[in-house]
Amino acid sequence: MLTPTEVTRARERAAAALRAAGIVLTHAERDAIEVADFGLSELETIGLEVVVYCNTDRVCAKELVLFPRQTCPEHRHPSFDGTPGKEETFRCRRGVVYLYTEGDRAERPAARVRAEDRQAFTVWHEIELRPGDQHTIPPGTLHWFQAGDEGAVVSEFSTQSRDDLDVFTDPRVERQTVVAES
Amino acid sequence: MLTPTEVTRARERAAAALRAAGIVLTHAERDAIEVADFGLSELETIGLEVVVYCNTDRVCAKELVLFPRQTCPEHRHPSFDGTPGKEETFRCRRGVVYLYTEGDRAERPAARVRAEDRQAFTVWHEIELRPGDQHTIPPGTLHWFQAGDEGAVVSEFSTQSRDDLDVFTDPRVERQTVVAES
Repeated sequence: MLTPTEVTRARERAAAALRAAGIVLTHAERDAIEVADFGLSELETIGLEVVVYCNTDRVCAKELVLFPRQTCPEHRHPSFDGTPGKEETFRCRRGVVYLYTEGDRAERPAARVRAEDRQAFTVWHEIELRPGDQHTIPPGTLHWFQAGDEGAVVSEFSTQSRDDLDVFTDPRVERQTVVAES
Repeated sequence: MLTPTEVTRARERAAAALRAAGIVLTHAERDAIEVADFGLSELETIGLEVVVYCNTDRVCAKELVLFPRQTCPEHRHPSFDGTPGKEETFRCRRGVVYLYTEGDRAERPAARVRAEDRQAFTVWHEIELRPGDQHTIPPGTLHWFQAGDEGAVVSEFSTQSRDDLDVFTDPRVERQTVVAES
């Protein structure tokens, strides 16, 4: 759960990060930045800030903002409605993002995960994305990502986004953000 | 037809416009910027510069660069392979772009089209896009666009792009750029 103040502050920080990346938002978009704490109430560690540009039956485009060392928890996008599930391309615009997916395990991963959280992170094939770098995640593939020390701005190009269907490794995760009443 | 020098110069100008919009490209992407003269050999008037980030069976993302008053000629994306055809969202990042599509005709359109070219432009419903503005074009819908006096950078989020299938109003248009031998 987040407080209204936490949501407002996170939106302001995310808007500033996007501005620094040269990305212009409308006022309505700034006011609607999604702040996701994944139900864990520790936004600085596990969280994500999202601007959804479009999300039709066929195409979705978003900007993702990660604060320094903020982590989007491990998940996969299952098939639905006869489609293979969400296919997504991440393109780094600013900062550094460490993306982990299925494959050979990195010997010395750059991301930092607390010992008590480690069981919720099972894939450790590391892809480092700096501005101009991108990577496509096929449907159904486990993945998670963490920003470097300066935070990151990442564009996501994908098929339809159905966040409600995402399957997280950590059973405590709730994708829908709950904001406390002020 | 374009000369190799024209292609190189257009790539350099497009890369500079993208840089000014805060968009970082890899060296390989800069060297591969598509310069389209639509077979009309007057790139400054009718043309488009394109960076393709990804184009899978399901999703495509591009950056489009338009030089000042440069025009992408009128066309539509037909259905193919049992799909409805390409659906695309244009989001303006820098400059101004005047997008024309089917609907009520603008009384005083902002785009400039030479009298001798007018028969190749049949839809005049005007949508002005400034940084942060966007518009989605449904499949099969006629559309064309022209940058304002400062040029424009536009992000395109779409389903699979099959430029070879595009149907242009001007029968002289050839989508595939031909570069003269040096």
